[in-house]
Amino acid sequence: MLFHVRMDVRIPRDLPADEAAEILAREKAYSQELQASGKWRHIWRLAGEYANFSIFDVRDNTELHEILVGLPLFKFMEIQVTPLLRHPSSIREDDS
Amino acid sequence: MLFHVRMDVRIPRDLPADEAAEILAREKAYSQELQASGKWRHIWRLAGEYANFSIFDVRDNTELHEILVGLPLFKFMEIQVTPLLRHPSSIREDDS
Amino acid sequence: MLFHVRMDVRIPRDLPADEAAEILAREKAYSQELQASGKWRHIWRLAGEYANFSIFDVRDNTELHEILVGLPLFKFMEIQVTPLLRHPSSIREDDS
Amino acid sequence: MLFHVRMDVRIPRDLPADEAAEILAREKAYSQELQASGKWRHIWRLAGEYANFSIFDVRDNTELHEILVGLPLFKFMEIQVTPLLRHPSSIREDDS
Amino acid sequence: MLFHVRMDVRIPRDLPADEAAEILAREKAYSQELQASGKWRHIWRLAGEYANFSIFDVRDNTELHEILVGLPLFKFMEIQVTPLLRHPSSIREDDS
Amino acid sequence: MLFHVRMDVRIPRDLPADEAAEILAREKAYSQELQASGKWRHIWRLAGEYANFSIFDVRDNTELHEILVGLPLFKFMEIQVTPLLRHPSSIREDDS
Amino acid sequence: MLFHVRMDVRIPRDLPADEAAEILAREKAYSQELQASGKWRHIWRLAGEYANFSIFDVRDNTELHEILVGLPLFKFMEIQVTPLLRHPSSIREDDS
Amino acid sequence: MLFHVRMDVRIPRDLPADEAAEILAREKAYSQELQASGKWRHIWRLAGEYANFSIFDVRDNTELHEILVGLPLFKFMEIQVTPLLRHPSSIREDDS
Amino acid sequence: MLFHVRMDVRIPRDLPADEAAEILAREKAYSQELQASGKWRHIWRLAGEYANFSIFDVRDNTELHEILVGLPLFKFMEIQVTPLLRHPSSIREDDS
Amino acid sequence: MLFHVRMDVRIPRDLPADEAAEILAREKAYSQELQASGKWRHIWRLAGEYANFSIFDVRDNTELHEILVGLPLFKFMEIQVTPLLRHPSSIREDDS
Repeated sequence: MLFHVRMDVRIPRDLPADEAAEILAREKAYSQELQASGKWRHIWRLAGEYANFSIFDVRDNTELHEILVGLPLFKFMEIQVTPLLRHPSSIREDDS
Repeated sequence: MLFHVRMDVRIPRDLPADEAAEILAREKAYSQELQASGKWRHIWRLAGEYANFSIFDVRDNTELHEILVGLPLFKFMEIQVTPLLRHPSSIREDDS
Repeated sequence: MLFHVRMDVRIPRDLPADEAAEILAREKAYSQELQASGKWRHIWRLAGEYANFSIFDVRDNTELHEILVGLPLFKFMEIQVTPLLRHPSSIREDDS
Repeated sequence: MLFHVRMDVRIPRDLPADEAAEILAREKAYSQELQASGKWRHIWRLAGEYANFSIFDVRDNTELHEILVGLPLFKFMEIQVTPLLRHPSSIREDDS
Repeated sequence: MLFHVRMDVRIPRDLPADEAAEILAREKAYSQELQASGKWRHIWRLAGEYANFSIFDVRDNTELHEILVGLPLFKFMEIQVTPLLRHPSSIREDDS
Repeated sequence: MLFHVRMDVRIPRDLPADEAAEILAREKAYSQELQASGKWRHIWRLAGEYANFSIFDVRDNTELHEILVGLPLFKFMEIQVTPLLRHPSSIREDDS
Repeated sequence: MLFHVRMDVRIPRDLPADEAAEILAREKAYSQELQASGKWRHIWRLAGEYANFSIFDVRDNTELHEILVGLPLFKFMEIQVTPLLRHPSSIREDDS
Repeated sequence: MLFHVRMDVRIPRDLPADEAAEILAREKAYSQELQASGKWRHIWRLAGEYANFSIFDVRDNTELHEILVGLPLFKFMEIQVTPLLRHPSSIREDDS
Repeated sequence: MLFHVRMDVRIPRDLPADEAAEILAREKAYSQELQASGKWRHIWRLAGEYANFSIFDVRDNTELHEILVGLPLFKFMEIQVTPLLRHPSSIREDDS
Repeated sequence: MLFHVRMDVRIPRDLPADEAAEILAREKAYSQELQASGKWRHIWRLAGEYANFSIFDVRDNTELHEILVGLPLFKFMEIQVTPLLRHPSSIREDDS
């Protein structure tokens, strides 16, 4: 089941540099593991903004929630969730 | 080059039913042709809304513009365009 | 799986009274059938507004979408969908 | 008498961890006591957000206000209150 | 129990003058009857706007809703409802 | 002459508790003195919010301004002022 | 007593040209009479918009309201009223 | 050439009192000098707000900009600029 | 003197096609004449929107206003004006 | 390929003056180098605001993004990107 998620990141200026670097490294590893599993199907950067549009393919709302609150950057993010589905004009068989 | 586009459709109530049906049929054909060509890479429906999120892969802003203003439903749409790029945390080689 | 939906209804002033009555009757029947099935778990009226907050319990986003676009009043509604889940402080075993 | 309440929580980053934990524990106990009493009828989490939608069943506005300002997290919350009532299309006898 | 209500009136330009006059006369009578009963405690005009702030004193949300949807101008109004209560700094014994 | 005022209070978290208590005590005394004089005609609390709706009856804009900037909590408030007048549907002789 | 008023004008496209011309002529005469009386102290056009900022000097809110609802264009205007007063840094004796 | 400017002032709470007093004194002197020169034609206070509406009469955009960024309070202000001109209904020969 | 202008065009659906074509032809000629004169320095289309960003170089606010209200499409446009000036980091001698 | 970018700058008050000066000097040099290269085609200041409108001419979204995130002031900016193209009414051969 698909969800469109916009994440805007705001790192506080007084976060120590090494702490920020450590969180960002964990964030990247966390994201890549979920991408590899197929649950985080796409991630794109918005040009000129510290933000991404992502597509998640999860079992249900609960799994989506657990993935999002588990983000190492979660407390520094503003998140917008939109449930999606296959569009009737899509030429594909599935929702990809 | 990637763009994220949100399209919200508002069909006027006084549009004759056959005219609406004809426009919708042309819209679907137009979209599917562009999907087949690879320029309209994804299209998803927003649950409960007459709207879609789409990803376009075009040569430049001009090509994107020509595709969007050529939509048979263009005059009944509100459109928001966001330029995208490959995210540094993506596990893929390209911007897919 | 739960979704919170806000529906705001705007009946156009030039809709003939009998047509409006017929649509409203179908809307009520449609809603009550879904309530009886358990898919439309709650519906409450907002005091002083032609609007409701509803809770849906559906299989997935697609089922929610089909229910919402099937509403006889759909074309006269503005709809906002929010995916929900059981709250960790809830005293209930399930998501009710 | 029913009220729909949306609560968005913003814990300040400089709140000491033990103080935060203590407040959250009190918040949970406070909420569960009110749920057990029947006054806090429902609480659901919004997927991906540190927020909930709740339904309160109270005697009047004053009781609602006292419950909300008594929340241990009250000073870290943004709260929106909407008075509700039984919907005329509901299949239930009462406002549940 | 008190509610603060803001009502903004938008009379459509194509409403026949006699129909408008008839609705406005009924609106005034309806309002004055409720004022006399004590349920519509205050009504003030906003300077320069076709709008009012009103204070209602009703039994519960349901009574408020029935009063508001019964307004002859209801379908031409935008309405915002805010539940109120006695302020702790008030010098009065009651909520007046 | 009447004014409707909405006041939203935001006490900074780092204000020392005794300083906050002292300001709140002065605020209450200040408000009650003005209520007793008849200039601050009504004050109601918004359910669930640290905010009030008030009605002032003052000589002119200048007197209103001086009262508001004299509030001990003024620097912690967001204030919205709306000039009011007797509504033509009011059943009262005056603007009460 | 001073008020700042912003007026945005929206003439409906289907208003017959002669009716529009007649209303605009009455609007101009009405405005100029009030300017001559000193009650409508200033009127300026916003560059590129069908809108004005005006300063009114009136006895009270009621007089302001009567002037504004008496505007021949009133029903085609959106109006925002802000009460003003002499600024403490003004070099003038009065509020001009 | 005329400009309408709205200035909202937000003095940070941790600005030392003497520093604030010194800035406010400079602000007042700066404003009064420009008023005396005729460039800052009007300044009015908004009732109940730490804000003013001002009218500037300057040679061009550059002069306006230099005046505004030269305000001692500039870094604590939010500023909105609107270009103005003589209104066709004005009874005056010039743009006053 | 420079101004940045955003123009959003909304052609009403019931405007006869030949009337629309005639207005659009006049709009193009009007714009090109002003571009040739140097007063309309730039015009760019926003990708996917019926809108443009333009830069005007005019004598003063009044000339800008006369140009904008003289646009054949003026009554179908929403217009936002922002006064500009040479940026201190510009590498050019003038404001181009 | 053209992009319109609005940049609003917010320098934190507690940034040491020498650090701010050093960042601003780097920002200016960075901007002027890109202007000289032709990629940052225009930069204009908004009158009265710490903000600019810029036009970039870049190869693609990725190059735009790299330029923007490389701005020494990037972390103190709010940025809005709008893709542009030659307007059909332009009198120029190219998109200048």
